[in-house]
Amino acid sequence: MTASPSAFVSPSTGRQLKAVLFDTFGTVVDWRSGVTAELGRFAARHGLTLDPSVLADKWRAEYQPSMETVRSGQRGYVALDQLHLENLKRVLERSGLSPAGFASADLEELNLAWERLPAWPDVREGLQRLKSRYVIGPLSNGNTALLVNMGKNAGLPWDVVVGLDLLRVYKPDPDAYLGAASVLRLHPGEVMLVAAHNGDLAAARAAGLATAFVPRATEHGPGQATDLAPASDWDAVAADFIQLASTLTPAG
Amino acid sequence: MTASPSAFVSPSTGRQLKAVLFDTFGTVVDWRSGVTAELGRFAARHGLTLDPSVLADKWRAEYQPSMETVRSGQRGYVALDQLHLENLKRVLERSGLSPAGFASADLEELNLAWERLPAWPDVREGLQRLKSRYVIGPLSNGNTALLVNMGKNAGLPWDVVVGLDLLRVYKPDPDAYLGAASVLRLHPGEVMLVAAHNGDLAAARAAGLATAFVPRATEHGPGQATDLAPASDWDAVAADFIQLASTLTPAG
Repeated sequence: MTASPSAFVSPSTGRQLKAVLFDTFGTVVDWRSGVTAELGRFAARHGLTLDPSVLADKWRAEYQPSMETVRSGQRGYVALDQLHLENLKRVLERSGLSPAGFASADLEELNLAWERLPAWPDVREGLQRLKSRYVIGPLSNGNTALLVNMGKNAGLPWDVVVGLDLLRVYKPDPDAYLGAASVLRLHPGEVMLVAAHNGDLAAARAAGLATAFVPRATEHGPGQATDLAPASDWDAVAADFIQLASTLTPAG
Repeated sequence: MTASPSAFVSPSTGRQLKAVLFDTFGTVVDWRSGVTAELGRFAARHGLTLDPSVLADKWRAEYQPSMETVRSGQRGYVALDQLHLENLKRVLERSGLSPAGFASADLEELNLAWERLPAWPDVREGLQRLKSRYVIGPLSNGNTALLVNMGKNAGLPWDVVVGLDLLRVYKPDPDAYLGAASVLRLHPGEVMLVAAHNGDLAAARAAGLATAFVPRATEHGPGQATDLAPASDWDAVAADFIQLASTLTPAG
């Protein structure tokens, strides 16, 4: 792709943007609503008394610690869909529900909740507009199959879906950001990460990428206290993906 | 994705299809017309007297031998965009045009011809129809960046673009076909390769994939003598991608 003359120039990298990549869980899709709904159906099917949003939060709380076992080298690379399944069994066990009491296929089906997450309402329109000028894709800890199925279920018009299973790394390892740029044959400064998480953006910037913050103030539910505002002078800050598209596609 | 009850069942694998992947050069895009046009512009720009279609054929003729140096282990993995550039320099040299007589950037620009190939006329409609039921993507020796840019330039609505650079392998190595299925978390028998080349299909079938043949009788120009008809009982044979979509999406 030849960069359009009116492509956005990143103040921090000094380069014209060519690709805009997105953190997914929380930034593109509303994992808490999606997982809560699937857990609610699972509980009803099995006649269980549980608060599905509490269980959703517990399941998500295992996300970072489980990736940390890989990042720290304590275990070899394990893809996120497998970590999600292990984490599910752990939280069920801790909630007094023995995983052995369910058929494997039933737990695997429940684990597909992470492929069926709803996009935030502004996402599809914003992505379509960005797609007209940039290569767009996820830059997510999700593995490729998970991201492909999520994209198909939620109607996300990605140009490229390279899960980090293909690079065998998890964010915020710098190789995740550098690897994504390298696969696209781009300079890191020509690639922007869009995320609702300041920590992810800090790691992306340290690796040389351009950065944009879009808040998702209810990602963690009504009482969310983190990532409500940008924590640094990111290259762009927008209320949602539609506003981001306007910022990144200046009239040429 | 849950398979639709009316998904195509492969006679040879006995499984419902979940993904339809495509050989690209020749099957999806018309490399000869595209490369010939780019070489014609290059020749005009530099005031060269040459037959661009002859040079296009010579450039393409280096494709298999250059990949063979990797497949045979003679050299480590080198991605296709780099092989294309090396091959271009070799054919220019042999045609009496020293590559050193051109700026590197000019040759690199010409090498992007492989990202700007026109799709055959039936491709976009056929892919759109297949996309409504299956995961669709290339299964090509092209590297990811090349395939992403090709897809964007030609308007190909891929769900997934995993170039074989990510698996560090070239077709017809069985790991190319098996790796593509594995990345999608599918059984090989749930994945179909669509190709205009009987040899590619034979290797895909040997690896356990479903197969479909779509002839491209002018891929090599008006005098083409190979791959004009199916050489085996492939799971599907169709005149073009639109007919293929009808075959693979039986009314449920």
